[in-house]
Amino acid sequence: MIVVLKSNVDAARENQLIDWLKNMGLGVHVSVGEYQTVLGLIGDTSKVDTDLISSLDIVESVKRVSETFKCVNRKFHPEDTVVSIGDVKIGGGNFCLIAGPCSVETEEQIISVAKAVKAAGASLMRGGAFKPRTSPYDFQGLKDRGLDLLRIARKETGLPIVTEIMSITDLPLFEDIDVLQVGARNMQNFDLLKELGQTRKPILLKRGLANTLKELLMSAEYIMANGNENVILCERGIRTYSDYLRNTLDLSAVPMLHELSHLPVIVDPSHATGIARMVPPMALAATAAGADGLIIEVHNDPMHALCDGPQSLTPEEYAALVPKILSVREAIR
Amino acid sequence: MIVVLKSNVDAARENQLIDWLKNMGLGVHVSVGEYQTVLGLIGDTSKVDTDLISSLDIVESVKRVSETFKCVNRKFHPEDTVVSIGDVKIGGGNFCLIAGPCSVETEEQIISVAKAVKAAGASLMRGGAFKPRTSPYDFQGLKDRGLDLLRIARKETGLPIVTEIMSITDLPLFEDIDVLQVGARNMQNFDLLKELGQTRKPILLKRGLANTLKELLMSAEYIMANGNENVILCERGIRTYSDYLRNTLDLSAVPMLHELSHLPVIVDPSHATGIARMVPPMALAATAAGADGLIIEVHNDPMHALCDGPQSLTPEEYAALVPKILSVREAIR
Amino acid sequence: MIVVLKSNVDAARENQLIDWLKNMGLGVHVSVGEYQTVLGLIGDTSKVDTDLISSLDIVESVKRVSETFKCVNRKFHPEDTVVSIGDVKIGGGNFCLIAGPCSVETEEQIISVAKAVKAAGASLMRGGAFKPRTSPYDFQGLKDRGLDLLRIARKETGLPIVTEIMSITDLPLFEDIDVLQVGARNMQNFDLLKELGQTRKPILLKRGLANTLKELLMSAEYIMANGNENVILCERGIRTYSDYLRNTLDLSAVPMLHELSHLPVIVDPSHATGIARMVPPMALAATAAGADGLIIEVHNDPMHALCDGPQSLTPEEYAALVPKILSVREAIR
Amino acid sequence: MIVVLKSNVDAARENQLIDWLKNMGLGVHVSVGEYQTVLGLIGDTSKVDTDLISSLDIVESVKRVSETFKCVNRKFHPEDTVVSIGDVKIGGGNFCLIAGPCSVETEEQIISVAKAVKAAGASLMRGGAFKPRTSPYDFQGLKDRGLDLLRIARKETGLPIVTEIMSITDLPLFEDIDVLQVGARNMQNFDLLKELGQTRKPILLKRGLANTLKELLMSAEYIMANGNENVILCERGIRTYSDYLRNTLDLSAVPMLHELSHLPVIVDPSHATGIARMVPPMALAATAAGADGLIIEVHNDPMHALCDGPQSLTPEEYAALVPKILSVREAIR
Repeated sequence: MIVVLKSNVDAARENQLIDWLKNMGLGVHVSVGEYQTVLGLIGDTSKVDTDLISSLDIVESVKRVSETFKCVNRKFHPEDTVVSIGDVKIGGGNFCLIAGPCSVETEEQIISVAKAVKAAGASLMRGGAFKPRTSPYDFQGLKDRGLDLLRIARKETGLPIVTEIMSITDLPLFEDIDVLQVGARNMQNFDLLKELGQTRKPILLKRGLANTLKELLMSAEYIMANGNENVILCERGIRTYSDYLRNTLDLSAVPMLHELSHLPVIVDPSHATGIARMVPPMALAATAAGADGLIIEVHNDPMHALCDGPQSLTPEEYAALVPKILSVREAIR
Repeated sequence: MIVVLKSNVDAARENQLIDWLKNMGLGVHVSVGEYQTVLGLIGDTSKVDTDLISSLDIVESVKRVSETFKCVNRKFHPEDTVVSIGDVKIGGGNFCLIAGPCSVETEEQIISVAKAVKAAGASLMRGGAFKPRTSPYDFQGLKDRGLDLLRIARKETGLPIVTEIMSITDLPLFEDIDVLQVGARNMQNFDLLKELGQTRKPILLKRGLANTLKELLMSAEYIMANGNENVILCERGIRTYSDYLRNTLDLSAVPMLHELSHLPVIVDPSHATGIARMVPPMALAATAAGADGLIIEVHNDPMHALCDGPQSLTPEEYAALVPKILSVREAIR
Repeated sequence: MIVVLKSNVDAARENQLIDWLKNMGLGVHVSVGEYQTVLGLIGDTSKVDTDLISSLDIVESVKRVSETFKCVNRKFHPEDTVVSIGDVKIGGGNFCLIAGPCSVETEEQIISVAKAVKAAGASLMRGGAFKPRTSPYDFQGLKDRGLDLLRIARKETGLPIVTEIMSITDLPLFEDIDVLQVGARNMQNFDLLKELGQTRKPILLKRGLANTLKELLMSAEYIMANGNENVILCERGIRTYSDYLRNTLDLSAVPMLHELSHLPVIVDPSHATGIARMVPPMALAATAAGADGLIIEVHNDPMHALCDGPQSLTPEEYAALVPKILSVREAIR
Repeated sequence: MIVVLKSNVDAARENQLIDWLKNMGLGVHVSVGEYQTVLGLIGDTSKVDTDLISSLDIVESVKRVSETFKCVNRKFHPEDTVVSIGDVKIGGGNFCLIAGPCSVETEEQIISVAKAVKAAGASLMRGGAFKPRTSPYDFQGLKDRGLDLLRIARKETGLPIVTEIMSITDLPLFEDIDVLQVGARNMQNFDLLKELGQTRKPILLKRGLANTLKELLMSAEYIMANGNENVILCERGIRTYSDYLRNTLDLSAVPMLHELSHLPVIVDPSHATGIARMVPPMALAATAAGADGLIIEVHNDPMHALCDGPQSLTPEEYAALVPKILSVREAIR
């Protein structure tokens, strides 16, 4: 960490700061320049509050040299992490298609969609049983009954299940669920993250609505620091001033997250755009950007879907899209 | 709700849509214009998914006529809500000063700050025991021990306690806490909101990092729809591309929330700016904008605060600020 | 246009509004619902100020039914526009590679880069002679001398020139320039747009830093409404709270602009990311999203570039990228 | 400037970088830490491209120690600048009220509004003759005829004129105009800024839609570096994801700009909110935040205003607001 002092700082105050830093167990390397003095801090600076130091009136600026994220950091783990869900692998060159309805609605619906997406090439199915909704009056999901329906569909198709968990207290219900999704609104629900870190389940962690890449990585760090290394990052669109689309899909997050971290990165083009006809071009673009997988909403009857119908592809549209995705994947090798 | 159809829509598809809407129990008022047809939906449209309808290829646009928020809506409750915490009142002309450290650290610290802010004019004290931190390696709060220290400070000073709850599972620990704060990162932790709706505790609900006013009101609606009417809204700065300040304090939220809702609205200038010397001007500005109260971080030793030191005022700075706040409050009457 | 009145509006005030609208030459279609009255406005509503009407206290909301953009609107021009620059075509299935240095620096530099990008497959060269820079102390471009160097490179290679114009007063200098670029900061320099509308030159119009798609289309409308139909739209990244990248490349703009407008849409992955090693994945993603072309910065010596060196590819990197771009282009057919 | 190298950097490459920096005329102070090496650059680093250096693969990060803005910087000019327009002063404790219609429409209108705002306490009048509009089909202003009407109103009332200039080519028309406004969309129209720097006119420089404080200061620097020291900064709301208001008024910009720069800072609550009834609370809040003045839209007949009617106060509303503004001003002394 580098602390740049203002010019003409009082020597007594400067020494007071240096002593305080040394009391924190840090080495302090003082470098006196023409106009100002720079302190280089050596040792474990991960617990130093840069905001505090930069607020001191003798300090010009503070700059961390090393990231505060450790477990997720590619520097400390150069090879790609590969997350395994049964026979399915994500990351490290393994590309993965996840598909299914926004919400689980009926046994018939989830089985028929699961069969259709499997036939089209998906290797995991998604479906929401616990649904976070902006309005308390919107459909909140079938909850444990929805999980049961997912289990039935898994039995029918063999596809492992990806579904969202919203609360620690629901954890026992998810014991045999294959991949636990943390939704965008819960990306910084730290108690939930810690608890998921205690499990060994694969966790699909979605980027929050307006969170930076660093914040996403720090949330993954919460899970990994508690012992669970099976984390999949997911870009799903961020909030901007977009006028025609729900969110702005930030595809540059894909190569940047790959550079910063060893974790697999997948993309959700359905929530990102909110419009079914925008899903195919953005799915292809995400693939071209190097994503390790795609999570796409597919519904057998989008017009009657209880939630997020407008962004769902039909099974036929999905089946038409998959070969193009694979062609793009081939093209960028 | 108004549904505008595209021009030259196939009559069969139009009728199909109209029938579908009628099957939802809605009245449909068809108005044929020169270039297009407009459907007016009458009845309870609160459960209609506008995104779904607007995604249909025969639909040009959809416009809700009435807000989806009900309990929090000033239209259905024209008088200001006044939230009472013992003798302290917020809203409806009652202005309230809340102050204290970001984190509870030691008994000595919390008592001395509580006494100082009471002497300066505060009528509630704040102090974090459970701390949401971006990094798992940052100080996470003293937890239940912190709550005990707050109780001691309350006994010493008589000031009611405002402190953050992060998880449903902690709720039993907060039984005798006066005001439960929901932090920005948990604004859309709907399970937590529902649970708090089951209590009758005053809830201080902070606006999320990048949430709209409507989303804030819908989160308050979660609490109120579950039966708890004691909700205080709090603007604490939103995320933008600000370069010199942590967040952008959106003070226009104050009069706009007052127009949309009957709930009291307070402002947190400390988290909004992240810089102690910016707190006084923004506290004054919030007061002039019509806020019903201010929640301000005060620490007896900001340089050694375990969290958010740089944005804390000293007790002396706070004591100097309060009379100015009251003068501005007087000036806008 | 649809005007929804509040419930229980005074009839006299309602009639006053209706008369005022009729005085503007509009037909007014009144539809009385259970709770409120809706006015449908028929005729040329393009000059009606929706903000004004929505601010009236008897009005609940106002909704435009038809876009205010006309010339650029695909509804009025269903086929793709193809812009021709000599033998080079952009749009309507014609894909176009534009490449070159951020700034023209020396004759040797521009000729060598132009030859290299031509050899790699580019059909237009870019190079800035007039440079908009945030700081007055940064290199502002070689100006007319730079244009001369571009002409020399064109003579050597046959590649048409794309270069930025910043001011009306410079227009005479650009008489034989092939494509005039309007930079992001000038997207709403309406006097410049009008003047360029008077020419018949192809105009490459970059989206502004934080402008919506509608605003971009309205700026294109300024050019087209003045008679120039040769407009190419360009997405180049928007400002968000991105932490590791300069801007956020909004690739969903590509399919959405294609839906809204018949104009060709190209993408600039260099300015969007600001980091050379992020350019290839984002160039491929843009291609997969359906872009009609790519404008990429290439410099023979990025480390010594006078501006934007860090985002420039070397000629070798560019030559390695082009075949992948063409493969992705093939894959999405 | 501080350049932090990555750990384990090849010595040859490190020396190559150091030599290159020295060749730019900089002193390089090398400080070898436990894990990495830090280079301190001494001398005129204002022309060093930090993006370039930070993109080098041996570089971890780059941090500027001193701001690139000089003339506008309070460090180099500790006293407040006071801009004088005839007898009217802005800055350094001088508070200034500017008011008038968005657009000049008729002689009667501008005279009556000018008289009204003067009577209410305004000391400068505003009124747009050249209007930047998103749509080419919206009213573009009366242009030179509008300037004439402003002159007539000035003669009648003695109030100096503030009006927007959109293009260099119009400059001769503005010779006797008192204050030239640069609108938000032209904040980075650098050719215009340079030309205004050649005059000695007071320039009211509005912050762009999504520009940072640093960018605003750099644009002011363009004017000052060309010799004109009479610059007034203006906060007018920034673009966010606001749902009920046009823009988000960033009042924390006021104290922060005062800290960074000696220039006066005024606020435009009319454009910031877009809603007349939000103007009074935000005008009072801006005053409490320490603004040096307010520019407010007042129209004698907002319902018939040709532009921005919904955000205009009536003369009566303005007259009622001014005493409250002055009371708040008094309260924060």
